Amino acid sequence: MYNTFLLSGTQLLQWQVVMKLGGSADGGFSAQLERKVRLVNDVLERILSQPGLIGRELEEPVRYALEGGGKRVRSAIALWCCELMAGEVNRNAEIAAAAVEMVHTYSLIHDDLPAMDDDDYRRGRLACHKKFDEATAILVGDALLTLAFEVLAKQVDKPETAVQLICELAEAAGPAGMVAGQTADWQATSPGAPGASEEALRYIHTNKTAKIFRCAAVMGGICGSTALTTGGGASQEKLLSLREYGLKIGLGFQIADDILDVCAGSEQLGKTSGKDARQGKMTYPAVVGLAESRRLAEKLAGEAVAALEPFGAKAEGLRWLATMLLNRTR
Amino acid sequence: MYNTFLLSGTQLLQWQVVMKLGGSADGGFSAQLERKVRLVNDVLERILSQPGLIGRELEEPVRYALEGGGKRVRSAIALWCCELMAGEVNRNAEIAAAAVEMVHTYSLIHDDLPAMDDDDYRRGRLACHKKFDEATAILVGDALLTLAFEVLAKQVDKPETAVQLICELAEAAGPAGMVAGQTADWQATSPGAPGASEEALRYIHTNKTAKIFRCAAVMGGICGSTALTTGGGASQEKLLSLREYGLKIGLGFQIADDILDVCAGSEQLGKTSGKDARQGKMTYPAVVGLAESRRLAEKLAGEAVAALEPFGAKAEGLRWLATMLLNRTR
Repeated sequence: MYNTFLLSGTQLLQWQVVMKLGGSADGGFSAQLERKVRLVNDVLERILSQPGLIGRELEEPVRYALEGGGKRVRSAIALWCCELMAGEVNRNAEIAAAAVEMVHTYSLIHDDLPAMDDDDYRRGRLACHKKFDEATAILVGDALLTLAFEVLAKQVDKPETAVQLICELAEAAGPAGMVAGQTADWQATSPGAPGASEEALRYIHTNKTAKIFRCAAVMGGICGSTALTTGGGASQEKLLSLREYGLKIGLGFQIADDILDVCAGSEQLGKTSGKDARQGKMTYPAVVGLAESRRLAEKLAGEAVAALEPFGAKAEGLRWLATMLLNRTR
Repeated sequence: MYNTFLLSGTQLLQWQVVMKLGGSADGGFSAQLERKVRLVNDVLERILSQPGLIGRELEEPVRYALEGGGKRVRSAIALWCCELMAGEVNRNAEIAAAAVEMVHTYSLIHDDLPAMDDDDYRRGRLACHKKFDEATAILVGDALLTLAFEVLAKQVDKPETAVQLICELAEAAGPAGMVAGQTADWQATSPGAPGASEEALRYIHTNKTAKIFRCAAVMGGICGSTALTTGGGASQEKLLSLREYGLKIGLGFQIADDILDVCAGSEQLGKTSGKDARQGKMTYPAVVGLAESRRLAEKLAGEAVAALEPFGAKAEGLRWLATMLLNRTR
C-alpha cells in the first residue's frame, strides 16, 4: 500500500514555522528530530495497515486525521526519551509514541468541533468535521482514543510494561488530566465564570497540555528502562528527571502557543489565529501580558534544560528541542 | 459522602418495563439480578469517590451520567459470568463490570448528541448535552472512555489479567467494534447510501451492540478464570461458550430494542420512541418486518441459552436473563 505517511510538506512547513528546522548550526539535532518524525509516521502507517484493526468505514477518516502533517512533537519526545535511557529506540517506544500521537490527534479533532473551539482548519487542512461531518469527527476521535489503548495492550512486549504505559496515558489524558483541563478551559469562557487568574491558568495549562508532554517523556523513559538490565534505583531517578522535563516543556509549549495565537497569522499556524481572544479564552498573554509571557516561556525552557542534568551531554538533543520549542515566540 | 448510586426508581422502572422484574415465579433470578445491579452501582460509587481520579470540574456531569438509572445489563452479565466460572464475584470482575458500564455510558452520551442521534432524553432524564451542554457531553464521554481503561490498568490485581481485559474492551469498543458499528449505522442513513439489507444490518448490530455484550461476558469469565487454580484447557472452552452467549444475547437485545422502538411509548422507554424510522435507520422491523424480527429475537435467545450447555444447571440465571431480555417484545 502506498505510504501516505511520508514526511509531508505541511509537516516540514510546520516545523520551519516552529523552529526554523534545517538550520546548519544546530549540531545535527534537526536531522535527528526529522528522523524521529519519519519514524512516527512509519509506525502509524504500519499500525493502520494491520488487517482487522480498523473497520472499513473508518479507514479513510482515521487516515485523514492521522496523516495530516502534525508536528509529532509529543511522540518525538517519547522516542528521544527512550533513546536517552536505553541508547536506542526500541519497539515498545515506537508503540508508545504512536499511542501518544493518537491521543493527541483525537483531542484536536474533538476540540475543533463546532460545540467546542469551532475551528474549520487544522494543520493547514480542513478539520475532520469539515472534511467529513460532525458525527464522523466525534466517532473518529473516539476510535483513536480507544485504539491508543488497544495497541499498547496488544503490541507492547511485556504485560507489566503495557500496564505501566496505559496507566500513564490514561492518567494524563483522562478525567484528572487532559479532559479535566479542557473542561476547565471551557467552563472559564462561560458567562458567570470566575475571573482569570494566573493560578487558574496554570491549572488549565498543566492539565490540558503539560500532562501529555510529561506522559510522553515518561512513557519513552519506561520503554527505555525495561531495556536496561541494571540500575533500578538510578532508573527511577532518571524517570523523575524526564517527568520534570516533560512537564516544563509542556507548560512552556502552551504559553508559546498562546503567544503565537496573538502574534502569528493563520497561514503560518495552519489553523485560525487570534481565536483565543475572540473566544474569551484565558491565556497568558491576556492575563500577564506578552512580555511576561515570553519571560515565563524562557524560564520554563531553562527549567526543562536543567531537569536533564543527570543525563549529561547525552541529553543535548532534548535540551535543544526545549530551547527551540519555547523560544519560537521571538 | 451520600451514595447517589442506590438502586434508583428509574432503574427499577426500566427493569419492570424490560422484564417485569419482581415476579415471584422466576426462581429467585430477579432477586439475583437486583443484587448485581446494586453491586455495580456500589462499585461505580466507590470508584467515583476515590480522590484524585476525577477533576473537580467533571465530578458533577460524570456522576450525572453514571448514576442515571441505566439497566446495567452488560455489567450484570460480566458479574454473572465471573460467578459462573469462579463460584463468586471477585474484585477484578467488579472493576471489569464498572469499566464496561463506563464505556456503555460514554457511547450513549456521544450517541445522543445533536450531530448524531439528537436525543434529548435518556433513561427517563435529560440527556447529558441537554442537562449541561454539548461541549460538556463530548468531554464527559471522552472522560468515561479513558477512565474505563485507567481503572482496569490500575485496579485489576495482575498485569496479565489487566492487559487481557483491556484488549477485550478496546477491541469490542474501538475502531473494529462499537465505533465501527456506529459509523456504519450513521453512514447507512446518509443520502446515496446503499439500500438496506439483512447482511448490512447484521454487521451494524454485531459491531454496534453485540461485541460489547460479548466482551462483558468474556471479561467476567476471564476474571473468574484467574481465580481458578486448575483447568486451563477447560477454562478456555468455557470462555468460548461465554463468548457465544454474549454475542447471541447482544444481537437479540438490539433486535428487541428495535422492536420496542416501534411498539413502545417514550415514557416506557425513557427515551424518544419511534425515532429509528423517522431518522431512516436500518432496523430489523424495517428490513424484515415485525413478525420475522420477533422470530429472530427468539431464535437468538434459544442459541444464547444453548451456548451455556457446558455449565449445566449452574447457568440457570444467565439462561433466564437471555430469555427475559429477548422475549421482552411481546
